[in-house]
Amino acid sequence: MLELYDLAGAEEDRRFSPYCWRTRMALTHKGLAVQTIPWRFTEKDRIEPSGQGRVPVLVDEGRWIADSWTIANHLEDSYPDRPSLFGGASGRALSRFYNAWADSVLLPGLIRFAALDVWRHVAEKDKDYFRRTREERFGAALEKFVADREQRLESFRQSLTPLRLTLQAQAFLGGDGPLYPDYIVFGGFQWVRCISDFKLLAADDPVALWRGRMLGLYDGLAGKAKGYPV
Amino acid sequence: MLELYDLAGAEEDRRFSPYCWRTRMALTHKGLAVQTIPWRFTEKDRIEPSGQGRVPVLVDEGRWIADSWTIANHLEDSYPDRPSLFGGASGRALSRFYNAWADSVLLPGLIRFAALDVWRHVAEKDKDYFRRTREERFGAALEKFVADREQRLESFRQSLTPLRLTLQAQAFLGGDGPLYPDYIVFGGFQWVRCISDFKLLAADDPVALWRGRMLGLYDGLAGKAKGYPV
Repeated sequence: MLELYDLAGAEEDRRFSPYCWRTRMALTHKGLAVQTIPWRFTEKDRIEPSGQGRVPVLVDEGRWIADSWTIANHLEDSYPDRPSLFGGASGRALSRFYNAWADSVLLPGLIRFAALDVWRHVAEKDKDYFRRTREERFGAALEKFVADREQRLESFRQSLTPLRLTLQAQAFLGGDGPLYPDYIVFGGFQWVRCISDFKLLAADDPVALWRGRMLGLYDGLAGKAKGYPV
Repeated sequence: MLELYDLAGAEEDRRFSPYCWRTRMALTHKGLAVQTIPWRFTEKDRIEPSGQGRVPVLVDEGRWIADSWTIANHLEDSYPDRPSLFGGASGRALSRFYNAWADSVLLPGLIRFAALDVWRHVAEKDKDYFRRTREERFGAALEKFVADREQRLESFRQSLTPLRLTLQAQAFLGGDGPLYPDYIVFGGFQWVRCISDFKLLAADDPVALWRGRMLGLYDGLAGKAKGYPV
């Protein structure tokens, strides 16, 4: 049985990491059963065999694998007879840009809405750690960092234009069905949904319609997870 | 023989359209010989059979096809035995986001550097048309529109982060070799190179190194084209 160390909040079933969601969706896409292990930011020692301190961490037959992109590639290579995450070698190469776009545009955009809500939902023992490390990174108190989020909404939505244009033309980034790039990008939206009631998207936005399709995949795996309605 | 209506400047051999370059590179990728036909902005009547007024327009055995994305799909479907532009159905679906990113992020970023230089290089009979239509679109005189380009350079380079991260990890967007998304994105850089000596990229930027590889493809098809050194 595969094991996945999965970021949890104060409530053990609130799983909100955008990177862990990439992996959860990828595992399910492959039809692989997994036992998720709730993990908190400050439990670095529990994932020490992975050689670093962040999740997702997958344990596959005693092998510890960190980093969502590395895990996706491991799953694709180790379980080639299962549905492909990339649709071939070209698809895998073309997926990297999505990873880079999500990490450098989408998630930095989303954190300006979600940072304080994350703090509200993390475990008590994580609160100081989360606040200290993030305030150092952001150069601002969490409250100040998200204070102008209403004014940021229009430019955030504008930053999704490439996504919107694509999803106006096809149901998923992967085409008629989802591929790993859908999970990469969706992880960001699911992250926010799990810890915040902030309305990021207009209901008729093609991105919101796609998010709805993503929430419904695999018998509602993501949609039924603890979080807020979108 | 395929024919391609290709945007030309005052000099017939200055071919600078970012969209036409996507098609030129795609045709060459497929190993298809093409006769390019120089075309100016105001020669709408010459491409009237395509049902619209912009290039690229490809004429393939009497069939007129407009729009670079549509042309790429036509080439992939009509010449399936030639090297694939997308690397399969998944690759094709995943390529759409690159098209959307280039059209909504990259090209609007580049035009803030290149608009006046384009005007300087268009054919005499196109000059009024180009200035009028662009100034109406930009809401500013061309001179004013590009006046702060030095100050914009840092944020423009920052907007390339997803590209940079990808090209730090692999030689081409398509992996070890180029695929259509490489041509989509490269078209923008080649556009600027053909009409401007402005230094968009630092020499050691992974994006610049990739651009160098693109300029060298197919015996230097793009690199030997009339333009400025990068």
